[in-house]
Amino acid sequence: MRALAENPAIIVSTASDKSELKAKISVAEALAIPASLYDEELSCLVNASKLKWIHFITSGVDPLFRHPPPAQLIITNSAIAWAPSVAEHAVALLLAFQRQIHGAQIAKQRQEWKLDELRPRLQTVMGSIIVILGVGMIGQQIARRLKGFDATVIAVARSAREHPDVTKVLPLDALDDVLPKADAVIVALPYTPSTVHLIDARRLSLLSDRAVIVNVGRGDVIDEAALETALRTGKIRGAALDVYEQEPLPVDSGLWKLENAILTPHLAGMGSKHLFQHLGAICAENAACFLAGREMPTRVWLKG
Amino acid sequence: MRALAENPAIIVSTASDKSELKAKISVAEALAIPASLYDEELSCLVNASKLKWIHFITSGVDPLFRHPPPAQLIITNSAIAWAPSVAEHAVALLLAFQRQIHGAQIAKQRQEWKLDELRPRLQTVMGSIIVILGVGMIGQQIARRLKGFDATVIAVARSAREHPDVTKVLPLDALDDVLPKADAVIVALPYTPSTVHLIDARRLSLLSDRAVIVNVGRGDVIDEAALETALRTGKIRGAALDVYEQEPLPVDSGLWKLENAILTPHLAGMGSKHLFQHLGAICAENAACFLAGREMPTRVWLKG
Repeated sequence: MRALAENPAIIVSTASDKSELKAKISVAEALAIPASLYDEELSCLVNASKLKWIHFITSGVDPLFRHPPPAQLIITNSAIAWAPSVAEHAVALLLAFQRQIHGAQIAKQRQEWKLDELRPRLQTVMGSIIVILGVGMIGQQIARRLKGFDATVIAVARSAREHPDVTKVLPLDALDDVLPKADAVIVALPYTPSTVHLIDARRLSLLSDRAVIVNVGRGDVIDEAALETALRTGKIRGAALDVYEQEPLPVDSGLWKLENAILTPHLAGMGSKHLFQHLGAICAENAACFLAGREMPTRVWLKG
Repeated sequence: MRALAENPAIIVSTASDKSELKAKISVAEALAIPASLYDEELSCLVNASKLKWIHFITSGVDPLFRHPPPAQLIITNSAIAWAPSVAEHAVALLLAFQRQIHGAQIAKQRQEWKLDELRPRLQTVMGSIIVILGVGMIGQQIARRLKGFDATVIAVARSAREHPDVTKVLPLDALDDVLPKADAVIVALPYTPSTVHLIDARRLSLLSDRAVIVNVGRGDVIDEAALETALRTGKIRGAALDVYEQEPLPVDSGLWKLENAILTPHLAGMGSKHLFQHLGAICAENAACFLAGREMPTRVWLKG
């Protein structure tokens, strides 16, 4: 906010709630909002407005696929600010599962030294094969963090270009071949119409019974009902999830009860001291480019 | 075992319990045991024997400080086999604490989406200052694993030589100056008479209230009663421990009840698929060198 206001060419107007936001759309040229506010009603107002640019202070642009904006509207996001923390959380989830931090927590609450129970469940990331789904900003930062752990890291991505932190990058059509080899699969894909249920019952059945699934991308990428069945039947070893098909995760979800699941409440992007400063800087830099007619650094192109 | 038995110059005799072990000491030239078996009684038998070499299949050689062996006895250990897993566990503990995996586990058991409660407790390793106490095999491997996390990693060690994975290495007498700056302190020191209670009440008081202590070295390095007080009073933010002054951790220890502590039951070295193979190879390699009169690769020199 302060970073934006420092630019004399910009008039900053804030909205303290959604109705105020909606009232101001008709006079604005640009909007900076979290994606969660972009619902059907807002979309109608946007489509009827003279807006030239929407900046998302969040990472994903999921609602734009459900409510398409006008083609000429410029879209930018703030994925670059959230990605490092999301990547760190992904590695934390993977390590917590392999090192049984969740099982140790249960034993601690009972004041029990459960070495014999925990020992056979322990695994190491070292020596394992880790498949990262997606090599966008988050996937790349996960790979960089895993570099020191002596694992084989394979990325699977639509654009299969080489990356220095990854053992190899495979195209999406190699996914079915690589899944049976994986000790862990880390989902770092955004929501798009083509990522929905990419990990479905069939692909889950390709995994080995030692496989752990981590999801810090979007809940919709995994068929959650199929995942729950795979976890309950021991078809796969475990899951460590930060995102869900429905959030908050419904009270009656079977995932809550599974011992072989670690669940965190969609907080992977949070916790960095510098997050707000970083978000402000991204918005201000995009705004300066917008005013100068230059390419905007975090522009998003909507692809199916 | 198999690796040892493949050497025709070696007669391997196994003991299935401690009394069998003790009976065989008088005829053996070398002994391969876990350090936990080396008690006062065994020490007396060793001191009266013709043993030339003791190989520890474990990492630390703690009991040798309490029960000194004859000066000419060669001591080797297997720290090199355990260190990678211990280092991985240290990073898992640090990440689990900063990303509140333990808090999320409690919320999960209650089937509660506790985002608002967990969010203010989240921290990132990114951007933080991490002090590693000890740059032996474990400390070095921790540093290598932390390299991708964009933290400032400072090692404090008796021998303050530079290391490529560490931002800087400081001598032990700089410890008091560096503690106030630390977001996390990772103890990776072995038991020796001079490491006992290195982290005492005075040094705990030098830490900031955002500091987290991780211990994968030896429980005796930290004054556990003082740590418990620091945790209970919020003097420091938290602790994530794998080792304790007394193991198993006594049922009446106050640590069990502290919400800001993650406890694992001394299992940091476990979980690697290749551990036993690696342990066998180390023993066999040392044995080959022993027979050839060459320097043994994992020889330990007992220092105060």
